[in-house]
Amino acid sequence: MSRTTAFLGLGAMGAPMAAHLARHARETGGRALVWNRTGARADAHAREHGSESVTLPDAAQADVIFSCLPTSREVDEVLTGLEGGLRPGTVWVDCTSGHPEAARRQSARLSERGVTFLDAPVSGGTAGAQAGTLTVMVGGDAAALEGVRADLAFAGKVVHVGGVGAGFAVKAVNNALLAVNLWAAGEGLAALARAGVDVAPALEVINASSGRSNASENLIGQRVLTREFPVTFQLGLLAKDAGIAADVVRAAGASAPVLMQAEALFRAAATVVGAGEDHTAALRLVEQMNDKEIR
Amino acid sequence: MSRTTAFLGLGAMGAPMAAHLARHARETGGRALVWNRTGARADAHAREHGSESVTLPDAAQADVIFSCLPTSREVDEVLTGLEGGLRPGTVWVDCTSGHPEAARRQSARLSERGVTFLDAPVSGGTAGAQAGTLTVMVGGDAAALEGVRADLAFAGKVVHVGGVGAGFAVKAVNNALLAVNLWAAGEGLAALARAGVDVAPALEVINASSGRSNASENLIGQRVLTREFPVTFQLGLLAKDAGIAADVVRAAGASAPVLMQAEALFRAAATVVGAGEDHTAALRLVEQMNDKEIR
Amino acid sequence: MSRTTAFLGLGAMGAPMAAHLARHARETGGRALVWNRTGARADAHAREHGSESVTLPDAAQADVIFSCLPTSREVDEVLTGLEGGLRPGTVWVDCTSGHPEAARRQSARLSERGVTFLDAPVSGGTAGAQAGTLTVMVGGDAAALEGVRADLAFAGKVVHVGGVGAGFAVKAVNNALLAVNLWAAGEGLAALARAGVDVAPALEVINASSGRSNASENLIGQRVLTREFPVTFQLGLLAKDAGIAADVVRAAGASAPVLMQAEALFRAAATVVGAGEDHTAALRLVEQMNDKEIR
Amino acid sequence: MSRTTAFLGLGAMGAPMAAHLARHARETGGRALVWNRTGARADAHAREHGSESVTLPDAAQADVIFSCLPTSREVDEVLTGLEGGLRPGTVWVDCTSGHPEAARRQSARLSERGVTFLDAPVSGGTAGAQAGTLTVMVGGDAAALEGVRADLAFAGKVVHVGGVGAGFAVKAVNNALLAVNLWAAGEGLAALARAGVDVAPALEVINASSGRSNASENLIGQRVLTREFPVTFQLGLLAKDAGIAADVVRAAGASAPVLMQAEALFRAAATVVGAGEDHTAALRLVEQMNDKEIR
Repeated sequence: MSRTTAFLGLGAMGAPMAAHLARHARETGGRALVWNRTGARADAHAREHGSESVTLPDAAQADVIFSCLPTSREVDEVLTGLEGGLRPGTVWVDCTSGHPEAARRQSARLSERGVTFLDAPVSGGTAGAQAGTLTVMVGGDAAALEGVRADLAFAGKVVHVGGVGAGFAVKAVNNALLAVNLWAAGEGLAALARAGVDVAPALEVINASSGRSNASENLIGQRVLTREFPVTFQLGLLAKDAGIAADVVRAAGASAPVLMQAEALFRAAATVVGAGEDHTAALRLVEQMNDKEIR
Repeated sequence: MSRTTAFLGLGAMGAPMAAHLARHARETGGRALVWNRTGARADAHAREHGSESVTLPDAAQADVIFSCLPTSREVDEVLTGLEGGLRPGTVWVDCTSGHPEAARRQSARLSERGVTFLDAPVSGGTAGAQAGTLTVMVGGDAAALEGVRADLAFAGKVVHVGGVGAGFAVKAVNNALLAVNLWAAGEGLAALARAGVDVAPALEVINASSGRSNASENLIGQRVLTREFPVTFQLGLLAKDAGIAADVVRAAGASAPVLMQAEALFRAAATVVGAGEDHTAALRLVEQMNDKEIR
Repeated sequence: MSRTTAFLGLGAMGAPMAAHLARHARETGGRALVWNRTGARADAHAREHGSESVTLPDAAQADVIFSCLPTSREVDEVLTGLEGGLRPGTVWVDCTSGHPEAARRQSARLSERGVTFLDAPVSGGTAGAQAGTLTVMVGGDAAALEGVRADLAFAGKVVHVGGVGAGFAVKAVNNALLAVNLWAAGEGLAALARAGVDVAPALEVINASSGRSNASENLIGQRVLTREFPVTFQLGLLAKDAGIAADVVRAAGASAPVLMQAEALFRAAATVVGAGEDHTAALRLVEQMNDKEIR
Repeated sequence: MSRTTAFLGLGAMGAPMAAHLARHARETGGRALVWNRTGARADAHAREHGSESVTLPDAAQADVIFSCLPTSREVDEVLTGLEGGLRPGTVWVDCTSGHPEAARRQSARLSERGVTFLDAPVSGGTAGAQAGTLTVMVGGDAAALEGVRADLAFAGKVVHVGGVGAGFAVKAVNNALLAVNLWAAGEGLAALARAGVDVAPALEVINASSGRSNASENLIGQRVLTREFPVTFQLGLLAKDAGIAADVVRAAGASAPVLMQAEALFRAAATVVGAGEDHTAALRLVEQMNDKEIR
């Protein structure tokens, strides 16, 4: 059966994700519409990947609408822009790292038009997006997820984690853990460096030991020790995600002192180092606090 | 060339490590002496693994002396017990998760007798000890390490990280990172559980995402979600290691707020939950703080 | 000029505050209406203090409406109950320890009816309420505050701190500081007690030194060392206030790691010790974490 | 009975303290010796206050020896300098903000010569030193304290808090509480400033409310809001004291997450802002973390 998808938001993550939708459409005889605030990017995507660059109202006609935007605020704006054209039966899959409360609000708003909302943030970074191996954590109606599972052509793993907003909540907590693990590793290496220990072999040992994490294995050696800090995921966005996790904690009446502390420190890092820097540049604040480079 | 090693301390880690020394001695025509405070354990080790159960003074005659004890305090005691019999040229390899200051003190004390001290803590747990794949992080004289590298029959990876005490410092920081990563993951999952999110799929997603760590991948699913908390590494010892890391931080004039908070929380967990419980049982305090089981 | 005031919510703080309004009305020839969810308390207040127990719609006719309720949620409910009867020109003075966002929402809602909203939380506890010496921190229109300043018969000090919501924000931060100062003093004394130092003279010294705070001077000696923990301000409400402060911090894009940590620890204390206990009973969790009574 | 005192260390605190000893000597017919590393300061003190500038060996002949130095390390050095000349029966009163472990070591060392050691740090700042109203917290033998109580001419309040080291422990905890209360107030005010609340009235309200502390009442308005940060107590020394408190906590096996975080943040502030700045300048780091001045 031929399907039409629309992808809204062709950023660093969205563009390669939409490219997988376009490939899938070719393979299955479907259509892959794309839209971007800056239309030129959508046109370029169409030329390069065989997608169709459309207006926002036209995107509303798709069977499945994907969005991948900086925050839930932009999703609200886009939703307002095409709400009038939505058709009952459509499924809206929001891959933004959004806010659980926004998910509940958007879901209620869409359900009035017969549209089902799934919060479906992704993990895996730009490399995973290009490889089509992203992990997708989905909140919302399980049956609706089954109905669109085959459309998630950019996914390596799809997991249903609970009701509306659960996907965003898990993503926020995942990113808060990234923040904690990254910051703590930075603290530890900075202290070792001040103590006269060689950082590179220390990191090698930690990565072969119980203290290792994705942050220590895949970020610090590649981005911090090299002093490159390439911007693939902005520090300000990770601080925002840690803030969403803090909201999840508070709304649940939970107690999470370490996550809260990390959120505050990342907020400070975004302020001191710059929200537009790579998320690993948060360790530049650790370095300032210790007057010592991690290298 | 035939070599004699002595292994002091046949605990959960030491016994399988010493068994690898015994195997190595058989293969190379050497001798593997063992000693334990409770002599019966040494006798049993000899029967089972072909090592030789000896007195402390006899152990002093080995070419390489290994120690693997709960803390640096026990190393001090054992050192006093055989100090008089030590021979110049011997290398003492302390695999205890010890304190850098103790290492410097012990190294100075041994050097007066012509004995070289290497702090050489290990990572990999009881499973790694049995498989002979432990990671060894070594502080002290690099040439002395080269001289005994072939004797480290229990090691999968040996890394020289700096001068005397550097091995203990790296081990302490590694374990502090384990503590942080474990606690933070517990906080996140407890909050998600309170928010009505299913914990098992949330953990599955995190383990396929950027927030993953050794703690989330190899401990929480296996020990916490199962409610088994099998005791392979005591909570009190991890709290002690985190305390050593805090000492390293302070002695270096470093600033590590996240490591410091985690140390305090693990100290509290050891007090509230029990120092003799498994280190993962620290999450029982997280559960109490949230009135919610992580499952 | 004769004035009519209405006071909504006759709890531990509200009842003595309303008694001062009744006294003031007698002195100035005005009227002091009172309302409480449980009407019997209002009737008793009328008998005891000469106020007039009225229905919610009747209360809407007052020149100045005071509310003093557990949280902004109850204010929303009460507002809904008398909204229809409100008259233009009325000033609503909300003495609840409320949420700045609620203040902005309520202010907008009331302004549609020509009613001015002032957020005016108080500090001073039940003793200050009885003595009529409360400190009132006011957010909202400065001219409106001048118009009702003479009606604040329960106040010892009235300070305008900014626009709508600023009063709630300052109150929340004040209470978060109370939480931090109280918890930290508890940590310090518990550690000293474990170290074998006598707690009472240690507290005496701190209260004559630079580390003193209102918490150390007026709470710990009186409520913790005595083991009495009399319930005058519930732990759950202080945890709630610290949570509002955390929301203020996050909404402002601020970084406050110590306030965040304290909020998390008070949340945990409310869960472990009981939200209905006195706020000083939070130190019972500190005691558990240290296996040591502060005495 | 005529007494001879010696005062070692004429810094910002020591000089006015020794002046009170000189005054007391005049009043009682005793002698007040003074010594300083830089001898010119002692000579000037003698001219100005009528004390006697002496060599270190001469100071050893006093009945009571006071020391007031930056850290316990300098006390060790001075002790080595006059140890040979000490007489049995002398009492050594160390007013340094020292380390409890150093106190125990120094006490043992002095007792071999029949000299009693009292750790007797003071609180009250340079103003209290000049007014002679310092609070003295004393650890060590209670009878020895009684024997010298009349000699503490700089004291407004003298409290015996426990055995050797207890005075230093209480002082360290007091200063850690100062650090916590100061930092937290800074966080709260910075967040309020970012939220658009006027800082000066907010501080005024807090100082009339439950969140007040010595830091909020006597430091922030006078030193931070004025942007003066006059150096009367160095940031590096407060960070050092907070570190001693952390050592007390750890040595006692206690759990104090808030004190630990504050210590780490003050260490960072000393590094980023400068160890030689006033302790209130720690809030400059809070300001950097929030991109907002507290004013």
